[in-house]
Amino acid sequence: MRRQVSIKDVASEAGVSASTVSYVLNENPNVTISAETRERVLSAARELNYVPNQAARTLGSSRVMGMTESKLIGIVIPQTEPEHYGARLMFSNPFYSSFLSALELPIRSAGYHLIVSGTNPGQSYFEIVRSRALDGVIILGMYPSDDEEEYISFNVPTVLVDCYGCDGRFFYGVNTDDYKGGYLATRHLLERGHRKIALVTGQLKENGVNVLRYRGYCDALEEFGVRPDSSLVFAGYVGFEYGAEAAREMAANMNNISAVFATSDITAIGVMNGFRANGISIPKDVSLIGFDDIEYASTCYPPLTTIRQNIEEKGKRAAGLILAAISNRNLPRVKEIIGLELIERATVRSLV
Amino acid sequence: MRRQVSIKDVASEAGVSASTVSYVLNENPNVTISAETRERVLSAARELNYVPNQAARTLGSSRVMGMTESKLIGIVIPQTEPEHYGARLMFSNPFYSSFLSALELPIRSAGYHLIVSGTNPGQSYFEIVRSRALDGVIILGMYPSDDEEEYISFNVPTVLVDCYGCDGRFFYGVNTDDYKGGYLATRHLLERGHRKIALVTGQLKENGVNVLRYRGYCDALEEFGVRPDSSLVFAGYVGFEYGAEAAREMAANMNNISAVFATSDITAIGVMNGFRANGISIPKDVSLIGFDDIEYASTCYPPLTTIRQNIEEKGKRAAGLILAAISNRNLPRVKEIIGLELIERATVRSLV
Repeated sequence: MRRQVSIKDVASEAGVSASTVSYVLNENPNVTISAETRERVLSAARELNYVPNQAARTLGSSRVMGMTESKLIGIVIPQTEPEHYGARLMFSNPFYSSFLSALELPIRSAGYHLIVSGTNPGQSYFEIVRSRALDGVIILGMYPSDDEEEYISFNVPTVLVDCYGCDGRFFYGVNTDDYKGGYLATRHLLERGHRKIALVTGQLKENGVNVLRYRGYCDALEEFGVRPDSSLVFAGYVGFEYGAEAAREMAANMNNISAVFATSDITAIGVMNGFRANGISIPKDVSLIGFDDIEYASTCYPPLTTIRQNIEEKGKRAAGLILAAISNRNLPRVKEIIGLELIERATVRSLV
Repeated sequence: MRRQVSIKDVASEAGVSASTVSYVLNENPNVTISAETRERVLSAARELNYVPNQAARTLGSSRVMGMTESKLIGIVIPQTEPEHYGARLMFSNPFYSSFLSALELPIRSAGYHLIVSGTNPGQSYFEIVRSRALDGVIILGMYPSDDEEEYISFNVPTVLVDCYGCDGRFFYGVNTDDYKGGYLATRHLLERGHRKIALVTGQLKENGVNVLRYRGYCDALEEFGVRPDSSLVFAGYVGFEYGAEAAREMAANMNNISAVFATSDITAIGVMNGFRANGISIPKDVSLIGFDDIEYASTCYPPLTTIRQNIEEKGKRAAGLILAAISNRNLPRVKEIIGLELIERATVRSLV
């Protein structure tokens, strides 16, 4: 059987990117394409006998059969830290389960079902879109990737949550102001007289949330005339165990650390326990601030001072955005930013 | 258009239940049907011109179009306590997220995707099966219901988790020995000299897990010559807030309570915080034991003594069972029981 003409063939014939072909053929109103490029794409498509919508056909399943809607929305929760890949990671951070929980109801109420999927190591975030006809997709914590163009050519409405650096002409976004959160947390400690402030975080990967929280931390320090010290930065992975591990390491050589900013609550609770196991008391010996405000931030002991991102609001906004994008394919590619709030509880002691 | 003959019509013509018709037509090997009944069903089906598999056709979507497999497995997490219905409840108990997390990987590895759905109040647990072609279903915490027979007639392999009282000839099961868990928790307190033992639990509904844990509690008390006292039983809902509420109530009138058995860890952590807020110290003033061993049981302070059910194992078993049931429709209707273990941490003080 003769291979079907793909969007990539058209792109290569026209000398443009696959996403440009997609923008032209799908008449994406958010992207301005020159008349000349537009003509080149259309004539390449005609010449190769490209059948529009062919990309969608490679998705298999119901679309092939002429159904217009699958009433399925995918939610992809990647394993961002492959060395800790495994069944337990996906939801071990209650952030994900709260987020999912807030999403599920509005999506079900609108007559859709939610397909939840992790990603295999080395496998694309986009695999689920290749293998399923989905009306829309919500992807958490994705990094820009090589097959983004191909993905865009599928033209499936997609909301990226906590993602940076991807093509804003195609993707919708829901984010937290991660930089500001890191700044606020650190400034809170600085204002209370702390200067030796350790950071416990996940991988500091370009375009990830942690690196932005880290930059907020650095800038707050600089603002108070404190030079960021890399020996105070513990960048492992987001999780309880890593927090405990970092605390054990600090306990072995306190080096005058008087406060810790953990860039997620689950890590902060690990830090708390790791210190306690080594006879270091919070906030008497060390102050601690987290990030997220998961339920356990208020129920742990002592209750955790943290930067609250409204996770429920975030889930609801992502749900609202994907539903709106499905029903209006011309919806402007908005990027919503969820507000932050400092929640003072009992883990920060003032030195002044 | 003439209404299609349903399995219920056949059942009514033959004077048997819809599930009996299903057992006969699907040749379910787990159910013994007399030759006489079998003949009556088959002749009613012939007479009415019933087309086998018609039930599946009412499911809509891909099956209608002749696809044999949707490669979709549904997981239904009901709102068992309608008065606390809402978006937050579904996963606010980390038990569910750990369970889901353990399920997702083996199911994805086998080439299936997972549809996650809550249930609306008043809506059937079975709605998702009516509206979707699913290859298999996993349902958590379902109670026997009136439309069970209709559901059985769909003949979709289904694993019930933490369910009691449903038709064991059709459903597969994964359970914890809830009665034994309640018994072990209470006996642990009794052996350490406690006699005034309060119970904090969810609704004590027939065929629910809580009522079995409650019976284990009662029987352990009786074994030690203690008469169960209903004024010591706090049956609200499973959740942090209710635990805190029950603790506040107890604190107002301690009535010599020396220990509390909370039938879920999330409730136990609520009890712990509620007591702490009222100046009652655990385990100095009151001992506490939980149930589940969620991650926070070991990370809360003081670390919680609890009855561990291996939630990850439970998720993996449910995944293994549904996959086996899909690939072998004659798989015997097994009911797997997950083991329990007492985990001693720091919340139970011995009085002897």
